[in-house]
Amino acid sequence: VDTQADLDAAIAQIGLPAVLKTRRLGYDGKGQIILREPADAATAWAALGDAPLIIEGFVPFARELSILAARDHNGETAFFPLVENHHRDGILRLSLAPAPGTTRALQAAAERIAARALAALEYVGVLAIELFQVPRARDWGLGAGRAISQSPVSSPQPLLVNEMAPRVHNSGHWTIEGAETSQFEQHLRAVLGLPLGTTTARGFSAMVNLIGALPDPAAVLAIPGAHLHLYGKQPRAGRKVGHVTIRADARGELEERLARVQSLIELPQLGNVSHIE
Amino acid sequence: VDTQADLDAAIAQIGLPAVLKTRRLGYDGKGQIILREPADAATAWAALGDAPLIIEGFVPFARELSILAARDHNGETAFFPLVENHHRDGILRLSLAPAPGTTRALQAAAERIAARALAALEYVGVLAIELFQVPRARDWGLGAGRAISQSPVSSPQPLLVNEMAPRVHNSGHWTIEGAETSQFEQHLRAVLGLPLGTTTARGFSAMVNLIGALPDPAAVLAIPGAHLHLYGKQPRAGRKVGHVTIRADARGELEERLARVQSLIELPQLGNVSHIE
Repeated sequence: VDTQADLDAAIAQIGLPAVLKTRRLGYDGKGQIILREPADAATAWAALGDAPLIIEGFVPFARELSILAARDHNGETAFFPLVENHHRDGILRLSLAPAPGTTRALQAAAERIAARALAALEYVGVLAIELFQVPRARDWGLGAGRAISQSPVSSPQPLLVNEMAPRVHNSGHWTIEGAETSQFEQHLRAVLGLPLGTTTARGFSAMVNLIGALPDPAAVLAIPGAHLHLYGKQPRAGRKVGHVTIRADARGELEERLARVQSLIELPQLGNVSHIE
Repeated sequence: VDTQADLDAAIAQIGLPAVLKTRRLGYDGKGQIILREPADAATAWAALGDAPLIIEGFVPFARELSILAARDHNGETAFFPLVENHHRDGILRLSLAPAPGTTRALQAAAERIAARALAALEYVGVLAIELFQVPRARDWGLGAGRAISQSPVSSPQPLLVNEMAPRVHNSGHWTIEGAETSQFEQHLRAVLGLPLGTTTARGFSAMVNLIGALPDPAAVLAIPGAHLHLYGKQPRAGRKVGHVTIRADARGELEERLARVQSLIELPQLGNVSHIE
C-alpha cells in the first residue's frame, strides 16, 4: 500500500476488518491500525501514510504458534519445538513451550515452512516465524473478500505464516532455561560458524512477560522453577520490563506454578483459547 | 604450625607422609608441599615458613565428593546434590553430578555436615565443602600416627571434611546448565535476601576443566549437550582457561558424550576410581 488509491483497492479486495501496518520497525502493536469500517481508511491513511504500508485481512485462527529456527553458513538447520503464544493488546503475554498438544505432523509442517524461509533468504542466524494454526477450510467463515477456495489458506496445511522476525524473539526466551541450547547461544553459534546446538526442550516451560510493572521479585523467586529476568528498564504502561520463565518436569506441575505467577501479575486466562489437536 | 618446633611436633604426632599448607589463599595445589621423609621438613619450612601454616596427615579415601550449600539471612538452607571430583596434579579435572552411586543416606550425611558448618559460621551465601568418602574404619591402614580408634574418623560416618571454600566453587559450575538454579544465582539470591532457588539436578552432568590449553571449540560444540565456557585468559601450563559442561538425560548417554570430550582433551580415566556404595 503506497497510495491512498492502493488502500481503497485493497479494502475492496480483502474486505473489513483489516489491519494497516507499517512495513518496517513495527512491534508490540506499534505502527498498526485496525480498520473496522470504510470511514477508518482515511483516518488510518492520515496517521500512517508517510511510511510504506501493508494491509492484512483478518484470519480466523485457533491459536498463535511460533517456531524458532536457525541456519548456519553451511546451510545446516535446527528447529526448536513449537511454542504457543497468548497476546493481549497486541503484546505477547505468555508463551508455552513446547506448545501443548503439538503432534509430530504439526511440528514437521512448521519446520518445512521455516526451512523454506531460511533457504530462500540464504539466512544465517536465528529466525522466528509466527504462525496461525487455523481451523479446517470448510469451517471458515470469511465475511467479506474472496472465497476461501481461491485463497492459499485452503491448503490442507493447518498453519499460516503471520509474521517473521529475522532475529532472536520474545517467544524464544524460554529457551534460556527450557531448552538444551538457548536461542541467543544458537544465534552466536550460527553466525560464528560453530555447530548448531541441541534444540530439545528440557521439561515444560512457560514464559510470562512483565509488562508495565514488576511484581515483587521475592514472591516470584519463591515459586519453584521460576527464573526472573529484569531488563533494567524504567517501568511504564505497555513496556516490557522483564520476563519470568517457569520450568517444570511435568505439565501439571507447570500449570500449578504458572497459576502462582498469575496470582502475582495479571495474565490472559488460558481457558479462552480453544486448541485444535 | 607457627614455628619449626610446631612442625617437628606435628610430624611426630601424625606421621609421614603429610601435607604442609599455607592457611590462607592456597588453591590448585599452590601453597602446599608434601613431606615424604623427615628431611623434607626443613626444606618445606624454608619455602613456606613465612606464612601461617597447617599440616595434614594423609587419609586413605575412596573418592572425593563435594557439596554446594547455601544459607540466607533467615537461616534457611538449600543443598545441591553431591558431586564426584577427579583431580590430577592438585587441580580439579572432572566433576560428575549428581555423584554416581549416591544413596539418600550419603546425601543426608553430607547435608548434615554442611548445615553444621553454615550454622556455626552464621554463613550467608554459597559455601562449598570438599569431602573424602572413606573406607570403613576397620579397612584403614594408617602407617604412623595415632590409632584410628582415637581419631574422629572412626565414626560410622563415611565422610571426612577435606576443605571448605566460602564461595561458589569450580565443582559447582555444572549447576549453570545442570541444576534448576545455578550456584551463582543461588549466591545472589542468598546475599540479596531473596528466596533460595530449587537445587534439583536436571538430568546428568559432567564438568570438564580446560587446563593449560583450549580444544577446538567447534569440535566441543558438535557434541550434543555440550556447553563451552571460555574465561578469556591467556593459556599457560596448569591454568584453568575454561570448562565444558556436558548434560544428558541418561547416565549412559552422558558417558558416551563425555568420552567424545575426552577424545579432544586429556582427562583422568574414570576407571581408576573405586566407588563405595
